[in-house]
Amino acid sequence: MRFEIKDRDGLARIGVLETRHGKVETPALLPVINPNKVLIEPKEMKKLFKIDILITNSYIIYKNKRLKEFALSKGVHKLLDFDGSIMTDSGTFQSYVYGDIDVDPIEIVEFQRDIGSDIGTILDLFTNPEESYDETKRKINETVRRARISSKVKGEMLLACPVQGGTYEDLRAACAKKMSEIECDVHPIGGVVPLMENQRYDDLAKVIISSKRYLPLSRVVHLFGAGHPLVFPLAVILGVDLVDSASYAKYARDDRLIFPWGTEKLEDLEEIPCNCPVCTSTDIKELKEMDKVEREKKIALHNLYICFSEMKRIKVAIKEGSLWELVEEKSSLNPMMFDALRVLEREDVKEWLEKFESISKKSALFYVNPHTLHRPIIYRYQKRLFSVYRPREKEVVLKEEVEKPYSRYYREEWEKSKIDIIVKTPFGPIPLPLDEMYPIAQSVFPKNIDEESKILSEKLIKEFLEKFELKETKERRKGKRDLDLDLDLDRVRYIIDMQFGKGVSDILLDGEVKIVKSKSTGKIRNVYLNGKHILSMRAQDGLFTLKVDGGRILHTYYASPRFRVVVENNVSDYIKNGRNVFSKFVVDCDSNLRPFDECLIVSEDDDFLGVGRCLLNRDEMLSFNYGIAVKTREGVKDGRNN
Amino acid sequence: MRFEIKDRDGLARIGVLETRHGKVETPALLPVINPNKVLIEPKEMKKLFKIDILITNSYIIYKNKRLKEFALSKGVHKLLDFDGSIMTDSGTFQSYVYGDIDVDPIEIVEFQRDIGSDIGTILDLFTNPEESYDETKRKINETVRRARISSKVKGEMLLACPVQGGTYEDLRAACAKKMSEIECDVHPIGGVVPLMENQRYDDLAKVIISSKRYLPLSRVVHLFGAGHPLVFPLAVILGVDLVDSASYAKYARDDRLIFPWGTEKLEDLEEIPCNCPVCTSTDIKELKEMDKVEREKKIALHNLYICFSEMKRIKVAIKEGSLWELVEEKSSLNPMMFDALRVLEREDVKEWLEKFESISKKSALFYVNPHTLHRPIIYRYQKRLFSVYRPREKEVVLKEEVEKPYSRYYREEWEKSKIDIIVKTPFGPIPLPLDEMYPIAQSVFPKNIDEESKILSEKLIKEFLEKFELKETKERRKGKRDLDLDLDLDRVRYIIDMQFGKGVSDILLDGEVKIVKSKSTGKIRNVYLNGKHILSMRAQDGLFTLKVDGGRILHTYYASPRFRVVVENNVSDYIKNGRNVFSKFVVDCDSNLRPFDECLIVSEDDDFLGVGRCLLNRDEMLSFNYGIAVKTREGVKDGRNN
Repeated sequence: MRFEIKDRDGLARIGVLETRHGKVETPALLPVINPNKVLIEPKEMKKLFKIDILITNSYIIYKNKRLKEFALSKGVHKLLDFDGSIMTDSGTFQSYVYGDIDVDPIEIVEFQRDIGSDIGTILDLFTNPEESYDETKRKINETVRRARISSKVKGEMLLACPVQGGTYEDLRAACAKKMSEIECDVHPIGGVVPLMENQRYDDLAKVIISSKRYLPLSRVVHLFGAGHPLVFPLAVILGVDLVDSASYAKYARDDRLIFPWGTEKLEDLEEIPCNCPVCTSTDIKELKEMDKVEREKKIALHNLYICFSEMKRIKVAIKEGSLWELVEEKSSLNPMMFDALRVLEREDVKEWLEKFESISKKSALFYVNPHTLHRPIIYRYQKRLFSVYRPREKEVVLKEEVEKPYSRYYREEWEKSKIDIIVKTPFGPIPLPLDEMYPIAQSVFPKNIDEESKILSEKLIKEFLEKFELKETKERRKGKRDLDLDLDLDRVRYIIDMQFGKGVSDILLDGEVKIVKSKSTGKIRNVYLNGKHILSMRAQDGLFTLKVDGGRILHTYYASPRFRVVVENNVSDYIKNGRNVFSKFVVDCDSNLRPFDECLIVSEDDDFLGVGRCLLNRDEMLSFNYGIAVKTREGVKDGRNN
Repeated sequence: MRFEIKDRDGLARIGVLETRHGKVETPALLPVINPNKVLIEPKEMKKLFKIDILITNSYIIYKNKRLKEFALSKGVHKLLDFDGSIMTDSGTFQSYVYGDIDVDPIEIVEFQRDIGSDIGTILDLFTNPEESYDETKRKINETVRRARISSKVKGEMLLACPVQGGTYEDLRAACAKKMSEIECDVHPIGGVVPLMENQRYDDLAKVIISSKRYLPLSRVVHLFGAGHPLVFPLAVILGVDLVDSASYAKYARDDRLIFPWGTEKLEDLEEIPCNCPVCTSTDIKELKEMDKVEREKKIALHNLYICFSEMKRIKVAIKEGSLWELVEEKSSLNPMMFDALRVLEREDVKEWLEKFESISKKSALFYVNPHTLHRPIIYRYQKRLFSVYRPREKEVVLKEEVEKPYSRYYREEWEKSKIDIIVKTPFGPIPLPLDEMYPIAQSVFPKNIDEESKILSEKLIKEFLEKFELKETKERRKGKRDLDLDLDLDRVRYIIDMQFGKGVSDILLDGEVKIVKSKSTGKIRNVYLNGKHILSMRAQDGLFTLKVDGGRILHTYYASPRFRVVVENNVSDYIKNGRNVFSKFVVDCDSNLRPFDECLIVSEDDDFLGVGRCLLNRDEMLSFNYGIAVKTREGVKDGRNN
């Protein structure tokens, strides 16, 4: 299977999956087509919504003589009159709804293969959240057994092997691990419909997390049955690539309209707050009075318009780096969704999410609600500060927040006293030299933040003072001012350490340092060491890009794999000339590197080839066979940047 | 001016305003038409968005010879080719943007009258928030002076007299009070554009509150220049009836697209997450590349689609009683909007808002964020509980929250011990018998609420125990169980007191009480006293409706004006026969009555005429000349309910 990442926001990714019927951009919403009762023709959906993939049910086709014969002779694409990618489900959900079903688990996979499904699904056993631990365990074992056999008969078809396990996190993890070892392509997370029906979004989050965490990152993850847009952002931020919707049709049958904020019954509405082609062309009175069949189709279309535009909004958010804002906003629409976010505040979950979080984003960080302070980028800031901070003296000046950047207000005072200034902020303590770094200067908080966030930030400031044995002072009481101290140099030091690790500034600044600032903005632009240009600072996020000469120093001083992405020897020359690093050539990678981190690119023999910006973290680089792993900024043979 | 309220949610109201050119449903968004440069024809807007009102600028017409002559000879409606209502502005905003303008303040009012404007605006003085207190005061005095003179020359035209006062709350209040005394129809709140431009939504909230609070409730309130949907819900919940939008065009000029969640630049988007007819029919690449003029119109149309559908969503929310949810949701889109909600948490503001809050609503109460516990309906619950609660003993059993209604879980325990059970909830303390009352049973909170809400609720429980000198116990330690106690009777008692006032249950239940319960649901349906049906309980909100026989008891026992809406003697017979009470006939009213409260309807001589349900509170009943004040449920001559 060819699947690669094009853009990302944490675990959320815009990917391209290739099947025999073309490319599918993810995250994708797969409309469910009932082959027995096609409410909206796939062709029409393709025209209206540009769908490149849909999902249908092979079991229904298999059980219907006419459909079965047609599909076997002409293929499922002809049956549905759709030339894009078709995923098929296997009858598992039918077994959950109607009890035992009458089909052989391997035969149904072969059947899917034979009708030309692009992605077929094994007949897994649905683990109902109400079931016992032992029963659930038995079911996942049988599911894994079936997956193993199915993987051998799948032929050219891509194979989907669901992760089951009820709400038992350890069983989900165990199932995911076993499924990882099986040769297949897509991992649906199954057995979640009862959770969504009962709005148990906290359990849903636990289930997604404990599954996704143990699945290969280069495989496609599908959340089975997630058809309401309320759930999409949560699913996507936890690394789900596909969702499918039968809801658009089910809700339409009950005269229920899907909206970005929830669902409304037609009878309760006097006007429809929607601009979609259905709602702008149909009067609500007409709609209420029209023939049931016609109305059902109209509402289904409306529901699809909403679902697809919500998916577009998610893609916009991924590209902007504002998906967390969207996830938190959705939690304000439903208290149970707020509970789901509480699961994401668990230390182990935050630690996991942080590994995938970009170093900086296009858009500013906006406070939404008390969950905001648990976002991975804030968690990282706090962790790193506590690990790299080196107090200069035992006394610090604590300051209240002012307009950003803080140094505009506090620089003068610092220059007089030269005592370190720590600003008390929702992020926790912020040493003055870090005030322009992403996301600090690029964040927007209310003046009157909620108490929970306030308590959290106060706790952090207290812990910070304790850990570094710092005392608050108002003025210099003893000792002399160190007149050599310079805020610009401090800024360079602090940011190097925050970005590269504790003490790295001692190495990169060991010599004659020259800081060049922009004449127009007064901001740091370039850093030279002994006459060599080692770092540049990006104006938009206050972080450094690494130059070849800076890279060379790090390469000399730090042993492998620190800062490194190791590539196969045979691509060395390409990299030296400034070509990008593709995942398939990555041999190893520093596990501390994060998306958008600066890195050294080296050969298997640790020859220094160039510097670049990671697009993936280590686990992703090693998992993916397609796509770019590192945007090479400068190869060692490359005179200038590319 | 004919203006009446059709539906409401607190201060937010769906109203109908009549001008010489037809009816206008409020809250309404008035698109701004620049008479010099019509981007989208009013006729087209009427067709697409069904607008029944727009706003244009009389000063621009006045200053342009061609437009002026045309408007004076054929009227402003012909000039804009629009047969709906037209409001005109006067040039004040131009004076703010361009400095002094060249027109006589009275002449411009006469000009608006002469060109046939439906609602003309006086030439008020724009109070910039940066101006000094004294300068602001001078300006409002001059504005009021002009309003007085303008009101005499307005003729048939409805007149808009803006409230100015910068961000000085006392000056806003003073200005509003003076404007109230002048004969006019609409009160724009002016000088707020700089606040919105700088997202100073907390100051905006203060300005709206300090203006609206002192304006007659029967007049139309307009927030000048509020054109972004982010602001609409806040404005409407604070009693604003009209907003106007030039933003749709201004933003379009800069290639900025308005969305329900904010604004995006066209260049930053690769796809448009929108279903409006413009976005579904135009490819984004085409849009980016098309001729600037054409693109501007397309984006302006998109912007209008969004703004109008957001206004529809607000109306849906008012009808459902879920506008607070929407307001709080919008605060999750922008931290400065969260700060605005903090203003609404001030005790004086909550007290004011509570007066307009309905007793119950169609939709359940959903927790959104830490502001939720400050909503007027929760504030009311807490105030009333503290004022009416009568402890039976000095010991109570405190219980954690369980699934609602709580009595399903705790009834049995109570029946054994007969010690009062108080459930600790986000609302604060909830005595068991109140568990089915709106909004308690009809509320949805997360399991893991935010700390701020938790602290608030714990504080309330502590205050409750202290105020009533209660001690927590686990079991009955002394005394005997009072075997006569009955939870149904307790429920009736508690709800009567919460709904009607402390001790009212002693009066209404003074005799032989019979409680009739539903056979299917087991819920209380009717209450009889000495064989007379005095109260019925509504299943959906657990509150009582008052029967004539119950009303008679209250009328006999409590002196005027308690529980009463007093109507002119000459309509007595109508009411006795079950006709509704119109505002214009209301002489007085108990100031404790709230929208949807049960009331007695009496004549000026305090003859008891019937019982009904208030649609308005006292101040509204006395202010309005149109519309229904009380839905009469039963007149004394009326055999049965109507």
